[in-house]
Amino acid sequence: MAAARERNESRQTSNSYNIPLTAIPRLSCTSPEANQLIKNSKPVILTDTNLVASALHWDLNYLASNIGDGKFTVYKSSSHKFKYYSDKKCQTVREFIPPMQQEEMSFQDFVNLLKQSKGEKKIYLQQALNDSVGPNIVTDFIKFNWKWVTDQQKTNKWGPLTSNLLLVGMEGNITPVHYDEQENFFAQIYGEKRFLLFHPDQYENLYPYPVYHPHDRQSQVELDSPDFDRFPNARNLQGYEGVVKPGDVLYIPMYWWHQVESLQNGGETISVNFWYMAGTPEKVTHPLTAQQKVAMTRNIEKMILQALSDPEEVPPFMRMLVVGRYT
Amino acid sequence: MAAARERNESRQTSNSYNIPLTAIPRLSCTSPEANQLIKNSKPVILTDTNLVASALHWDLNYLASNIGDGKFTVYKSSSHKFKYYSDKKCQTVREFIPPMQQEEMSFQDFVNLLKQSKGEKKIYLQQALNDSVGPNIVTDFIKFNWKWVTDQQKTNKWGPLTSNLLLVGMEGNITPVHYDEQENFFAQIYGEKRFLLFHPDQYENLYPYPVYHPHDRQSQVELDSPDFDRFPNARNLQGYEGVVKPGDVLYIPMYWWHQVESLQNGGETISVNFWYMAGTPEKVTHPLTAQQKVAMTRNIEKMILQALSDPEEVPPFMRMLVVGRYT
Ligand SMILES: [Zn+2]
Ligand SMILES: [Zn+2]
Repeated sequence: MAAARERNESRQTSNSYNIPLTAIPRLSCTSPEANQLIKNSKPVILTDTNLVASALHWDLNYLASNIGDGKFTVYKSSSHKFKYYSDKKCQTVREFIPPMQQEEMSFQDFVNLLKQSKGEKKIYLQQALNDSVGPNIVTDFIKFNWKWVTDQQKTNKWGPLTSNLLLVGMEGNITPVHYDEQENFFAQIYGEKRFLLFHPDQYENLYPYPVYHPHDRQSQVELDSPDFDRFPNARNLQGYEGVVKPGDVLYIPMYWWHQVESLQNGGETISVNFWYMAGTPEKVTHPLTAQQKVAMTRNIEKMILQALSDPEEVPPFMRMLVVGRYT
Repeated sequence: MAAARERNESRQTSNSYNIPLTAIPRLSCTSPEANQLIKNSKPVILTDTNLVASALHWDLNYLASNIGDGKFTVYKSSSHKFKYYSDKKCQTVREFIPPMQQEEMSFQDFVNLLKQSKGEKKIYLQQALNDSVGPNIVTDFIKFNWKWVTDQQKTNKWGPLTSNLLLVGMEGNITPVHYDEQENFFAQIYGEKRFLLFHPDQYENLYPYPVYHPHDRQSQVELDSPDFDRFPNARNLQGYEGVVKPGDVLYIPMYWWHQVESLQNGGETISVNFWYMAGTPEKVTHPLTAQQKVAMTRNIEKMILQALSDPEEVPPFMRMLVVGRYT
């Protein structure tokens, strides 16, 4: 496996976009700068947290042998893009066609599928770690650097840990640009992933779907072929980029947009997310932050949908509220 | 005075607009149709309410002699348009220039001004009747048909009477199209007024100013010269029209748009408004009415201004919420 990775390393390629991108800082977790960045809700790659040091021996074979026979959620896509959609919101948009399929299977079946489907159908395993995992995995999990991550949680006044999502992706897989409503430490275990990040103030340049839409929190803009007619502000997009290698931890602040790519010819990737609820907000001061404005838009959209009760009434109401009045 | 009115009658002219207009029904207040229209929040001109029969002898001289020496609010405008603005909201919009001036004066001074300023500066008296009026006016006021109007208030479950606004206008004066947040019986006493009315569902065609703007509740569209580039939906505008003569009462339902015109060469006009608070709403059913949607837009705009605290932040926030996402 290691030989295979080395052989591929020189051919690894990452997509190039016509977007100005600044490097995400790579820092030691002991540096004051790194801790200041986290405190200020700015992304940073930490190289020495040892957060998942106990899991750096994980690869497909080890997981297949040790993770147990529980069921794992596997997404299947005919393209390399895995654009998340909410099952619950599928009914609210007529004729919504899910861009990927979802299936529950054992880890061993996932690995078999992955070995068969060279090139054709792309697959992506995304499953919260739970108590069905085998004892060796439990041991590795217990040995995660909980002290460091819990100290961060306390220092930054975050809420509780909600889940550890295990991600196992094929080379070339892309999770298109979206934001999450939680704080995230993204720990890389195997292979490399490239991140594109965008500040929450890029909201107007990224045109999120309506909140009631199955693609809520996703951008309508395809970064590799932006429709500038529909989304003219996408021309103003600027962001950050960075590559995480095994042992690296990327802090993805809440409401920060991110696109995640497993490099082409980079082999499969294994990662674990540490998701934390937002902290209780401090006293509100003006002007509001971009994050607070995003939270406001979400609340307003939810309120309007509830008042109108029919999602199809929302767009005309929104236009009535704004077009020719605030435009 | 009567002779003067008759002489002018044949030359009276009303502005013509390129808008499809349906006649507002003229009905007896004893007809079931009339009462059904009021119940359904539809405008109607009632010819025989006798609401202000006790005041039909009012004219400028009678009022000047009997209304007392209290102060009356008089608006002065260099054009024939009197576009209302809120004093309280003047600070929220930078460089707002009030389109008319406001002055407090005795009724006698108003009449003197009116006789002097033939043609030039237009003036319009708009003052809630209060207890400073003289005993003859009080007697006339007491003899208004309070029984009929209070029966209507009860039948239609309106709230309390908030004010009786006395309006004394010069010929040609125009109150541009706006809506009020109260139910209104508009009683004509002297001269004639022409009304253009628009259903609340014409909101998208009339582009009201932002709620924080001094011209809140006014349309941005000039009916006599619509800017179709900025307000393309104004082309779809359709409305109602009617003329009220002394003794007529027009019901203007809450949130219905109205423009009010004293006819050119029609002499001065005297009217009294009966304004009632809205009734407590019945159980909400879906889809919402146009009125309920207007109320929603007002609440949303107020909420957003309060959250952002700076009016100048509202338009970009509104665009972020809607443009490219719901358009
Ligand atoms: Zn994410
Ligand atoms: Zn009005």
